[in-house]
Amino acid sequence: MSPSPDAVAPPPVIVLVRPQLGENIGKAARAMLNFGLTRMRLVAPRDGWPNPAAGPAAAGADGVLADAEVFPTLAEAVADCSAVYATTVRKRGVTKPVVGPDEAARAIHALPAQSALVFGPERSGLETDDVALADAILTVPINPEFGSLNLAQAVILCAYEWSRHHGHGRSSLVQPTVEDILPPASQAELDGLIAQIEGLLEPAGYFRHTGRAVTSRRTLRAMLTKPGWNHLEVRTMRGVLSALGKGPRQG
Amino acid sequence: MSPSPDAVAPPPVIVLVRPQLGENIGKAARAMLNFGLTRMRLVAPRDGWPNPAAGPAAAGADGVLADAEVFPTLAEAVADCSAVYATTVRKRGVTKPVVGPDEAARAIHALPAQSALVFGPERSGLETDDVALADAILTVPINPEFGSLNLAQAVILCAYEWSRHHGHGRSSLVQPTVEDILPPASQAELDGLIAQIEGLLEPAGYFRHTGRAVTSRRTLRAMLTKPGWNHLEVRTMRGVLSALGKGPRQG
Repeated sequence: MSPSPDAVAPPPVIVLVRPQLGENIGKAARAMLNFGLTRMRLVAPRDGWPNPAAGPAAAGADGVLADAEVFPTLAEAVADCSAVYATTVRKRGVTKPVVGPDEAARAIHALPAQSALVFGPERSGLETDDVALADAILTVPINPEFGSLNLAQAVILCAYEWSRHHGHGRSSLVQPTVEDILPPASQAELDGLIAQIEGLLEPAGYFRHTGRAVTSRRTLRAMLTKPGWNHLEVRTMRGVLSALGKGPRQG
Repeated sequence: MSPSPDAVAPPPVIVLVRPQLGENIGKAARAMLNFGLTRMRLVAPRDGWPNPAAGPAAAGADGVLADAEVFPTLAEAVADCSAVYATTVRKRGVTKPVVGPDEAARAIHALPAQSALVFGPERSGLETDDVALADAILTVPINPEFGSLNLAQAVILCAYEWSRHHGHGRSSLVQPTVEDILPPASQAELDGLIAQIEGLLEPAGYFRHTGRAVTSRRTLRAMLTKPGWNHLEVRTMRGVLSALGKGPRQG
């Protein structure tokens, strides 16, 4: 018998990018723990960490705060994650799949690897460069005439959906494909691939139009994130790039 | 033929019983409006009504507060309602059906009459006499070791579930989806890309192990098919390959 998907699908990590108020970090921790999520990661919290305002707002979810990990960049915070969801209410000119909390929860439970749910700063939301790191955009379908979801509310809806689907996959339902398909490579592996391709393109003058260089790099990253290549595929692509980098053989 | 349920199922009224803080009434209004609910009823609010602390916390949902109706008792507040759900996290010695937000939302959409979702005071929750008026108990399935759902969070989860089930197939709530996303490039475009990459790899000796050449070509094709790149992305990748094919620039 194959194990059920949940036996190998770890709960998602909740990543707060540049959170502003300690109080909101505490509220997010409380929202998480209400639905059984415990792993919080903080990217460059504005007021440093730990933050004395977080504890009281966590209303008892102190363990989540005590175990929170801090990273300087989002790339480092999701380096070990195979599926990264960027939550945003704003439309982006980025060609990535857009899912709701329901669909994201199903996918997270079906993936036998680490997933991350990424939330932006309270006021401004995620930057385009943050979204570029993600595999998909998670948008809560909201009243178009009144979109006013705060950080803790966005977290609690995602946590609630995760918990709502938790265990549905444990029944006798057979999902044979999950076992056979390798998960997407980790963010770190993907970063290695992107660094290699950029290292080859730089001397070739690909980024020489400096005005477009930032956009070009972002486009490349988005394109290479889109396939969800597994680690074998990433390795193959790196072999291709090595061959291309050497150029035609002599003789 | 019966009309579709939503054609005659009005959105539920949200009833706050003896709410304590104006701020929490405002937050509840905000949570409601985020998911398209607008009818609030207040039963004997502790500090009277209107309450100056409610407006700022509503973050723009002032219309919900302005239209809020005040009743002296819960019985009067739900007198016109055909289905009354009492939300509580605590177990009650009352023999009533217990449903989750998901099940309640389905039932509300299926009932061609007014429903009410009833929430108790922040600190103590609904009294047994309040629960006795209800047709069913609505309980959010929560972490048994950490039940700490505040009023606005309970409201938002119920409102979210109502909107999630609202007219599947309708467009009243924003679901930015694939309309912005270009379709995958045609097979011919993809073939062009594959031919280009093979044309570069051949002289580089990538396929020199003839025993593996067929497999390598097949793997490459599968990998490049997997992303579903649109024609802009295919064009970008061809530009990348052109740059790589030229190698480092002189001077």
